[in-house]
Amino acid sequence: MAVLREAFNDVRRFEDLQQHLGVSRSVLSRRLNEMVDDGLLDRVPYREGAGRERYEYLPTEKAWGLYPVMVGLMQWGDRYLADSDGPPVRLVDRRTGRPVVAAIVTDDSEVCAPSDVAVLPGDSLRTLPAGA
Amino acid sequence: MAVLREAFNDVRRFEDLQQHLGVSRSVLSRRLNEMVDDGLLDRVPYREGAGRERYEYLPTEKAWGLYPVMVGLMQWGDRYLADSDGPPVRLVDRRTGRPVVAAIVTDDSEVCAPSDVAVLPGDSLRTLPAGA
Repeated sequence: MAVLREAFNDVRRFEDLQQHLGVSRSVLSRRLNEMVDDGLLDRVPYREGAGRERYEYLPTEKAWGLYPVMVGLMQWGDRYLADSDGPPVRLVDRRTGRPVVAAIVTDDSEVCAPSDVAVLPGDSLRTLPAGA
Repeated sequence: MAVLREAFNDVRRFEDLQQHLGVSRSVLSRRLNEMVDDGLLDRVPYREGAGRERYEYLPTEKAWGLYPVMVGLMQWGDRYLADSDGPPVRLVDRRTGRPVVAAIVTDDSEVCAPSDVAVLPGDSLRTLPAGA
């Protein structure tokens, strides 16, 4: 879930993922390969300037299907496990600025696509998260 | 998560949980104690007829906070991991009969409380689940 959380938040390059997650290259590499095999991530080549080809890992539609689960877990953690500083990030609808929540709704409800959700720094985060 | 899923679906007595989960009494007992300690379940005594006092385990408000996460996981499993028989259960709004989904919505949206959700047998389940 930690890799998915980062990838949802636009942290998708190997070096960035390694830095954010604080795991060894071999552990991260194995985990990414498993997630590509499971159809959760697409491995996409990119090249910066004249550098050698590298890869970034984009969440697939199957992975985005877990986005409400991820947001629900964040929300629950903010409510029941957070310290007194408040949540590290706030999620809002980028079209209206309203806070968003993971909830149970009837299937005719107006819902936010993952691309409608903006990640803003919360009270306990002083530096902007990637993707914000 | 398996204990919570059962408890959300009205399987809350020790004997019933043991039967549904297929775990040993000692494993289940330890797990239930942990969840009571974590504030996820309330242990409530009950007595059937003249029998001895027994306990059932009711999800707390903190546990119900994970209900959207649970529904989101079920929904994702139904979509990406299910066999061709279709989902084992269907969740509907008991007030309107409409299917419900876990989704991201703005905080001013009309949402379903857990008590609004009815569990109905799906295409791949021939016997009624507990609580339906």
